Amino acid sequence: MNIVLSRDSQVRGMENTVTNAEKYFGQFCSLLAAYTRKTARLRDKADQLVRQLVDFANTETPELRAAVRSFAEDLAKVQDYRQAEVERLETKVVTPLKLYGAQIKQTRAEIKKFKRVRNNEIKQLEKLEKLRQKSPSDRQMISQAETRVQRASVDASRTTQQLEETIDTFQKQKLKDLQKIFSDFITIEMVFHAKAVEVYSSAFQALESYDLERDLEDFRAKMRGVYGLYDPRPLTDTAPSLASLGSLAGQSAESPIRNQRKEEEASEDNSTDEDPVEDLRGQRQGLHQ
Amino acid sequence: MNIVLSRDSQVRGMENTVTNAEKYFGQFCSLLAAYTRKTARLRDKADQLVRQLVDFANTETPELRAAVRSFAEDLAKVQDYRQAEVERLETKVVTPLKLYGAQIKQTRAEIKKFKRVRNNEIKQLEKLEKLRQKSPSDRQMISQAETRVQRASVDASRTTQQLEETIDTFQKQKLKDLQKIFSDFITIEMVFHAKAVEVYSSAFQALESYDLERDLEDFRAKMRGVYGLYDPRPLTDTAPSLASLGSLAGQSAESPIRNQRKEEEASEDNSTDEDPVEDLRGQRQGLHQ
Repeated sequence: MNIVLSRDSQVRGMENTVTNAEKYFGQFCSLLAAYTRKTARLRDKADQLVRQLVDFANTETPELRAAVRSFAEDLAKVQDYRQAEVERLETKVVTPLKLYGAQIKQTRAEIKKFKRVRNNEIKQLEKLEKLRQKSPSDRQMISQAETRVQRASVDASRTTQQLEETIDTFQKQKLKDLQKIFSDFITIEMVFHAKAVEVYSSAFQALESYDLERDLEDFRAKMRGVYGLYDPRPLTDTAPSLASLGSLAGQSAESPIRNQRKEEEASEDNSTDEDPVEDLRGQRQGLHQ
Repeated sequence: MNIVLSRDSQVRGMENTVTNAEKYFGQFCSLLAAYTRKTARLRDKADQLVRQLVDFANTETPELRAAVRSFAEDLAKVQDYRQAEVERLETKVVTPLKLYGAQIKQTRAEIKKFKRVRNNEIKQLEKLEKLRQKSPSDRQMISQAETRVQRASVDASRTTQQLEETIDTFQKQKLKDLQKIFSDFITIEMVFHAKAVEVYSSAFQALESYDLERDLEDFRAKMRGVYGLYDPRPLTDTAPSLASLGSLAGQSAESPIRNQRKEEEASEDNSTDEDPVEDLRGQRQGLHQ
């Protein structure tokens, strides 16, 4: 194996290193960007769920309202951490992988430069060969051609060394960057999952302490009290006029009776339930070991 | 407020309870199903990343290969846990919410039945009213009509009581189901996040122990050794024949030299790197406190 062949093989090895890095870093970049986007979609869905939970809580009896609100708050907290996860993945994982493209471009330029110099070496060798075949006796011409070949070889050697240093730096940076980027990815994920465990542990205990029976009593009281099932007045003595039955025929959702009920509920809520979320938080803290 | 009005108000309150449950449980169901699907998408992206990491590892120097493989394995483990999360969410959260529809249907049927009975009561009251206006002196007719009204009222009372029991059961079941479903959701999420923390902690320590310098030495040795940059033979004494340069002109990716290089790499890998993943696992265990 002569030096020109070996140089060519070496530069191909280097090109391979760079092409490989370009290919895989590109794929890592687009996959991790997609991973980040999917995480953001998950956050969006959970945020929608949080809004529905809050809406639902507002239609329920105080205990359940407090429990559902507390659950919604915890779910929202996890989404805040997920949002931080998304932002960190963008900044510390996806962006560095994107920027990697610039580094690869620079290394490609170095390789291109080397190829030009090496092609010159080959050209000079070809000329020398032709001279030797055409005019084997022209010592002066052959000597000049040999000098040019030697000069081109020195150039190629120097450029090869430069290229070797460039590739060395490139590889070192690649390894460092990979380690940094993957470590950052793991750290970001780890922090998010740890926070989620923390929030859900507290959410679980809050939900466990939810007093279903008290809620049922509230519900029963409301069903009987507000709608007056056990109205003590006898029936047939006070047969209603048709006029008073008029509103019963239409099943309008916004009948005055229903609106009144909503208001009653709302005012009752304010009196019996000062701040259910605060209450439950107190209980929750008590439950922590 | 007379009893017919109060019954009507009560049944509307019950209908409201059921409609509300139908609305919100339906939304919870579709949102949690979407949440589960987005989680599955996230798992898919991470699985793709795992495959690319394994492909990439196979093109790299032994230390990096071991480190990247180990990272890929850990990432795959997290996806296995995510898959379990997806399955559990389907079984214990989405399916129970779907099944809830049947329960709502049954309660709706009870309410419908009550409405029929109540409408009969109103009809009898209307007949009585008309009789009183048309033939106020026909005591017998009025007395019969009053009896029919009373009978219809007794029916309505009984059905109202049945309905009240149904709604009570419905509400109790609703509260129980909500608590169960949300508790299960929290538990499933908590278990997944806890497992992810565990796996990523170990992945982080494995990546931290990655020996970048040893990899660079491998890389340098390969660049110099395999491609023979420091070939000791002098240059100009052995000017190559043009024939030997032929393959250099074409930049074919599948040149024999490159294939040979791949084989050399492969055989070298086998000798220097018995089982890199096992090696790194050993180190990793040592790093745990």
